[in-house]
Amino acid sequence: MQKVDRNPIIVDPFNTDFAKRWSWTTLGKALLNAAENHAKARGFGMMNLNDVNYTWVLSRLAIEMEEMPTVYEKIEVCTWIENLYRLFTNRNFSIVGEDGKAYGYARSVWAMINYDTRQPANLEGLEGEHFEPYLAPEIPCPIEKQGRVKPLNDDCLVKVIDTEYSDIDMNGHVNSIKYMEHIMDLFPMEAYENGRNLKRMEIAYMAESYYGDKLLLYKREIDENTFDVEVRKLRRVDNNAEGTGFDECQQGSETIVRSHLKFQ
Amino acid sequence: MQKVDRNPIIVDPFNTDFAKRWSWTTLGKALLNAAENHAKARGFGMMNLNDVNYTWVLSRLAIEMEEMPTVYEKIEVCTWIENLYRLFTNRNFSIVGEDGKAYGYARSVWAMINYDTRQPANLEGLEGEHFEPYLAPEIPCPIEKQGRVKPLNDDCLVKVIDTEYSDIDMNGHVNSIKYMEHIMDLFPMEAYENGRNLKRMEIAYMAESYYGDKLLLYKREIDENTFDVEVRKLRRVDNNAEGTGFDECQQGSETIVRSHLKFQ
Repeated sequence: MQKVDRNPIIVDPFNTDFAKRWSWTTLGKALLNAAENHAKARGFGMMNLNDVNYTWVLSRLAIEMEEMPTVYEKIEVCTWIENLYRLFTNRNFSIVGEDGKAYGYARSVWAMINYDTRQPANLEGLEGEHFEPYLAPEIPCPIEKQGRVKPLNDDCLVKVIDTEYSDIDMNGHVNSIKYMEHIMDLFPMEAYENGRNLKRMEIAYMAESYYGDKLLLYKREIDENTFDVEVRKLRRVDNNAEGTGFDECQQGSETIVRSHLKFQ
Repeated sequence: MQKVDRNPIIVDPFNTDFAKRWSWTTLGKALLNAAENHAKARGFGMMNLNDVNYTWVLSRLAIEMEEMPTVYEKIEVCTWIENLYRLFTNRNFSIVGEDGKAYGYARSVWAMINYDTRQPANLEGLEGEHFEPYLAPEIPCPIEKQGRVKPLNDDCLVKVIDTEYSDIDMNGHVNSIKYMEHIMDLFPMEAYENGRNLKRMEIAYMAESYYGDKLLLYKREIDENTFDVEVRKLRRVDNNAEGTGFDECQQGSETIVRSHLKFQ
């Protein structure tokens, strides 16, 4: 089997934003689906791992789009494994037009964890031989690796949301791409209007949140086009004075996601 | 060209809910995309109409699923036009498995409106000859037509949300399927657990809402498994005492959507 999967996709009209551009969340889901289908076809998809009590966890995602394809365009989402280390593996993506034009690229970092203990597996030891034939470090992915986002101050709090049915995916936690949607919704429509759009988004997934969690969203402006976002969850408490079931003190919160966004 | 389009779809892992079932919102978008692609291929898609200053407006949608396909299943979303009347047209759908098993059906009602005046077009006069060859009233769609949902009382108000970037689609208004997501999120996880799921959902689209609108969501329990939901928007006001920009009195609200849900 070849190293690279090429997934043909048509930008369907109801998967676009108001400006008829493919929506970032549809793109995000297409990347994750491409990743899982690539892994599954080679024997190490989530379902294969579930049988042996392991699962994949997305640790980092960076997407950079030179341009977003628009409605009815035919594109391909390509994915391959860049490399494998003891505790994580890098998977890259390209989003390519019919004429071979690269719309953009993405980088992702995944760990494999034990379903019960949530401890990471040694990828080189446990599953190394499965991956070896598919490693493709020679394929270029000309976007920068993800940087580090410093913690945001409490006074950057801009929104509080409750997680709901539609947030939860088949892994039982808030879906990785749903965070992307919540983060993008922190910006006013003007950020996406008059030809402006998100150019690059990095997300570091640091912990999981679940149905019924209360999420705190923090936003920090670096400059006019550059922002950091942090998502924390309030710790649940068995009993508190207010009877809300949550520790309302922000100090009692746990960081779930840190994100860096660049608009153009 | 044949009357029926058959769109092959794989239930991708990140388009499922926590129970690995195809998500209702992905299904909803698949129906709308199938509708638009069917119309476009026959010369009366949204883009074709935009050229002559008309557009399609979804007026009613009823989806009934005997069972929801699950992750990795290969299905087909089929669509055809049932009939055409002066002011609206009926389009039906079936969701079929590889073995021909019908997972479910959907019915929809569409009007064509002038983009500027928002007045409905006479479909028989204006575009009738385009549709004639594709009408297929002979194809069965064995689910009931949509009923009428009575207005809900003010004391049924359960949630208020602000519309945001991700709510808006290429028509510039809150996306028809995004209402479905907001409506489904009015129910606790237990409504979808232990084999329970939505069986039937009807939505009547009565008016449009836009970016920045404040939506009021009302819910009424008919019996344990049957619910009505209404979505209203607060009218914007130029100036009010509270300075919120909205008429906070519920009397000043406009009904956007009425919905009827049946769980099983």
